[in-house]
Amino acid sequence: MPLTMTQLKISDAEFAERNERLLAIIDELGLSGLVLFDADYIKYYTGFAFIPTERPMAYAVSGGGERALFVPRLELEHAQSMSIIDRVAHYPEYPDLNHPMHVLVDLVKDMGIDAKIGADSDGYPWVFGYRGDALSQLTGGEVINCRAPIEDQMMVKSEAEIALLKESCKWGNLAHMLLQNYTRVGVGEVEVSQRASDEATLMMLETIGPIWRGNSAWFTGAIAGYRGQIGRNAAIPHALTSNIKFQAGDVLVTGASAAVWGYVSELERSMILGAPSDEQKRMFDHMLNLQTIAMEALEPGKPCSAVDREVRAYFDAHDLLPYWKHHSGHTIGLRYHEGPFLDIGDDTAIKAGMVFTVEPGLYVPELGGFRHSDTVLVTDSGAEMLTYYPRDLASLTLPA
Amino acid sequence: MPLTMTQLKISDAEFAERNERLLAIIDELGLSGLVLFDADYIKYYTGFAFIPTERPMAYAVSGGGERALFVPRLELEHAQSMSIIDRVAHYPEYPDLNHPMHVLVDLVKDMGIDAKIGADSDGYPWVFGYRGDALSQLTGGEVINCRAPIEDQMMVKSEAEIALLKESCKWGNLAHMLLQNYTRVGVGEVEVSQRASDEATLMMLETIGPIWRGNSAWFTGAIAGYRGQIGRNAAIPHALTSNIKFQAGDVLVTGASAAVWGYVSELERSMILGAPSDEQKRMFDHMLNLQTIAMEALEPGKPCSAVDREVRAYFDAHDLLPYWKHHSGHTIGLRYHEGPFLDIGDDTAIKAGMVFTVEPGLYVPELGGFRHSDTVLVTDSGAEMLTYYPRDLASLTLPA
Repeated sequence: MPLTMTQLKISDAEFAERNERLLAIIDELGLSGLVLFDADYIKYYTGFAFIPTERPMAYAVSGGGERALFVPRLELEHAQSMSIIDRVAHYPEYPDLNHPMHVLVDLVKDMGIDAKIGADSDGYPWVFGYRGDALSQLTGGEVINCRAPIEDQMMVKSEAEIALLKESCKWGNLAHMLLQNYTRVGVGEVEVSQRASDEATLMMLETIGPIWRGNSAWFTGAIAGYRGQIGRNAAIPHALTSNIKFQAGDVLVTGASAAVWGYVSELERSMILGAPSDEQKRMFDHMLNLQTIAMEALEPGKPCSAVDREVRAYFDAHDLLPYWKHHSGHTIGLRYHEGPFLDIGDDTAIKAGMVFTVEPGLYVPELGGFRHSDTVLVTDSGAEMLTYYPRDLASLTLPA
Repeated sequence: MPLTMTQLKISDAEFAERNERLLAIIDELGLSGLVLFDADYIKYYTGFAFIPTERPMAYAVSGGGERALFVPRLELEHAQSMSIIDRVAHYPEYPDLNHPMHVLVDLVKDMGIDAKIGADSDGYPWVFGYRGDALSQLTGGEVINCRAPIEDQMMVKSEAEIALLKESCKWGNLAHMLLQNYTRVGVGEVEVSQRASDEATLMMLETIGPIWRGNSAWFTGAIAGYRGQIGRNAAIPHALTSNIKFQAGDVLVTGASAAVWGYVSELERSMILGAPSDEQKRMFDHMLNLQTIAMEALEPGKPCSAVDREVRAYFDAHDLLPYWKHHSGHTIGLRYHEGPFLDIGDDTAIKAGMVFTVEPGLYVPELGGFRHSDTVLVTDSGAEMLTYYPRDLASLTLPA
């Protein structure tokens, strides 16, 4: 009997199914084919993972369903190893004597992609010193922006994608548990974050190494840290890291995740170092209520905006609006933020298979920031928390 | 007498000077003003560091020299803290009921930026789920792509930028020294990379923490590692990381750097675990010759292409072309790759103040990859190596 090894990654059959949906975009818009430059889109439709540099890369699909990668010499063997790819066109180097885009133009013309060309951008973006002409100029064809239908296709997660997100949650959980264990008064945040992230990454590699790849530009393994959101700084979300030593009374906002075949989850917790003050306790309780409201509001068929409106109604009813700074959440997958958003301005209908972060936050000057974030799957009947870290204040109060 | 604290970062006076050069672009192209969306360009002209998400940000400069940041509520205090900024416009959230770009359009119109508008892209790029209209559609103005003159301005480094690159080299050197010290047969590459990077980062923070910020999206401190380029894998450049244990006979290609106020250097070495074979020694020597040729070829006034041609002539003369995979180097600064490139297709004239990586590589199937990379400043009279790690085989042969 044939013997196969267990796989954690997206199967070739699923990549083929994703490409069927790409062909549907081509049909619907009457395109000759599609050219994608965005690394996340290429990863989604082919599994080919790369970090964009000045050397342009692209994925081209013809109306007839032929699939080609366009890469520099440096990535040739890597591209050729992708089993769902029919052909690979490569160029020696950028800029070289012959601009690489001429090789791409020859490729797409040979594939019959010439008149109405779908693309995610009109040429390779100018990153890391790359300069080059637009695809429309080079081909003389009309280039139609296809980002919106592509983003729409990526919104609902398959069973395999959900399995990868669940795997990511496990290793984010371990990293966060270690982070909490190592956080003590007088210790530096950088040291604690390094130790928790390193150990969780090594344990992940020992556990699932042979069937795992990170395939993410953001993390190379499991990660947990503080993002500078410590003590009074916690009131400024997304503050940049500096090396702060923990003090009794600090309100801490954490973040943890792990990259699993490109997919990332999100786990964030508010923790308090030492016995919480009455005001800290009051704000923590409000934050927990806000998050529960948002999670319980998730329901297929409902617009995303309705969830955020319920959250904002609580803010308003409890005079918390001065502490509001951002919407209630976003979807997550190959990118750590994706649309649709749990935002009063996003009327996208919630669907089963969407995976949201749920993370309303309260930011109180001097006192600190209060935010949990959980990764939550919408199901046919409601919602399932994929992250399972304790949320209550007792579990998140650290000795001081 | 006034007392000031020593500063490592770019001064406000230098940011003002950079903005004078931006005004020169506006004058030269007859623009009403400029709108920049690219995070690296905004960092270069203002010092404002952020990681792009679905929440659009922009830097706008009017023809009269007024400087404004456009940010979400989340970044308001951060933006307001930037002393060279005259005004900050903010919006509550993305997508919100009123699309944020309307706030940007109101801002730029109020600044008199309306008819011929310079920009690095026609609207905020669609990243992390962001969707929005083009700036030209929203303003009704003509949008002129100004990426090329901006990239030109970033090519030649100031004395302050060179000082930051030199500081980056020091901590990259420490990380690499620790990496070399900890690399032994049987140990895992991930563990060694973590230990070297962590310790170098902590030492950097203890040494220059109060006057340092990373301000980089790529590294949060000092970093050293193997990028999967171990043993036979070393023949594939830019291979993705997996957790490999070191074996005697491995040819290792390393990489080290550190982020210092956004600036990054590059230090890469080929190392051999155990006594090198004759063939390994032969390839190492060729690689060293190639790098020396490229470094000694750097000279103000010469085209970049000439350096790469000298390198390729050596490849050709020694029958090494089958092992060639990429050009001889690139410039470096706020981005770890920048233009111009040491490439036969790049005729940009080399100037004093340009900082290049010099890194011709040989990739021999089965045997391994051979590449050193040094960060080299072009001076009035020649070139100065800013990295100072040993390059010779004896220093880079590890006990096995």
